[in-house]
Amino acid sequence: MVSEKKRAVLLLSGGLDSTTVLAIAKAKGFSISALSFRYGQNHEHEADQAQMIATQFDVNDHTIVDIDLAVFGQSALTDDIDVPKANSVEEIGSDIPVTYVPARNTIFLSYALALAEVRKAATIFIGVNALDYSGYPDCRPEYISAFQALAALATKSGVEGSAVEVRAPLLHLSKAEIIARGLELGVDYSMTTSCYDPDTQNRACGHCDACLLRLKGFESNGIADPTEYQAAD
Amino acid sequence: MVSEKKRAVLLLSGGLDSTTVLAIAKAKGFSISALSFRYGQNHEHEADQAQMIATQFDVNDHTIVDIDLAVFGQSALTDDIDVPKANSVEEIGSDIPVTYVPARNTIFLSYALALAEVRKAATIFIGVNALDYSGYPDCRPEYISAFQALAALATKSGVEGSAVEVRAPLLHLSKAEIIARGLELGVDYSMTTSCYDPDTQNRACGHCDACLLRLKGFESNGIADPTEYQAAD
Repeated sequence: MVSEKKRAVLLLSGGLDSTTVLAIAKAKGFSISALSFRYGQNHEHEADQAQMIATQFDVNDHTIVDIDLAVFGQSALTDDIDVPKANSVEEIGSDIPVTYVPARNTIFLSYALALAEVRKAATIFIGVNALDYSGYPDCRPEYISAFQALAALATKSGVEGSAVEVRAPLLHLSKAEIIARGLELGVDYSMTTSCYDPDTQNRACGHCDACLLRLKGFESNGIADPTEYQAAD
Repeated sequence: MVSEKKRAVLLLSGGLDSTTVLAIAKAKGFSISALSFRYGQNHEHEADQAQMIATQFDVNDHTIVDIDLAVFGQSALTDDIDVPKANSVEEIGSDIPVTYVPARNTIFLSYALALAEVRKAATIFIGVNALDYSGYPDCRPEYISAFQALAALATKSGVEGSAVEVRAPLLHLSKAEIIARGLELGVDYSMTTSCYDPDTQNRACGHCDACLLRLKGFESNGIADPTEYQAAD
């Protein structure tokens, strides 16, 4: 039986960041309950990808939750709004982008909190990153701290003195550093995509914020991104 | 067009507390986006009840979200665990009861936060109550304050300087005071039930914590609870 201290819930999208976090958590000896979400037609393949990765990393269990989109809308990730495209990281706007999904990380972390309580896990891992990110408010260190404070008050385990700890090991790393860390740990990044707008064969677009940040991260490491990209028009 | 200040998302279960909050919010002139959840076979009828009440109070819109129970379990409200029964309020235990659903209010408030952002509502109303309650950690004032702090950091509107305000007008009222306030505002409590374990015709059991607290509240007001109860065996 794994002790509570070594049990963790890990939010796994199947992208570069969360897969790297999974490698880090496994390297630290955690027994992982992976948690993924299906929340819109745009990203149906993410759940399959997450499942493949969960299996490869030999997680303890993997839960996929269907998120009802009734309350959302107004995001390029859930609606018919076009995902913005650019040719370089420098062109990415500094405003909160249209790919922002209202309160998404709060909803994801709330489910993670529930699962942590059920699995008696003392830790939640999340792959948010405040450096090379797209300007989402719920990826900032102060947001993670506020959720941590909430978690201590929200649950039975918190009241009983053992609040869940939210760990975001990528928070202060650049995309290049994240990739370097993952490569050290033997992550096969060909299994991951980060694209906001993949084609029907799940090939990355190469021009959305997520693709551009990822490509630059591999470039900084002097290696090619093994993800399959759509051919240029 | 109603101003943002007068638009509110209201968590509506169709029980006594949330229906009273709805009456209070309407009396204050808010335009209401009601939000309800279907989250388990035990409470399927709650969503129908909420819909009836939403219509009666002429809300602006009503969203019912299906909650995937994959991460839960271990609660008498979602599993096959027996709901505890007693004959008086004095017999209710002081521990967190088996009817506790892990992180439930955190998940509900997260969805409310998303909807508030989409509807451009400045306020979220929730009917939690820290006095005559069943010992749930996520019904306490410090929990509501922590969620408020999180909301300010979690969303686009928060970052842009107009964080959602979480209002819990019943927080410090006794059940008797809640009922008195609702009666003043003309709430028809025959439309609401609070029971954790209704029968197939949705008649209240009369012996779970929620029924006992409710019955005592009506008794203190010197009137009979208009809800239909199961006949005694």
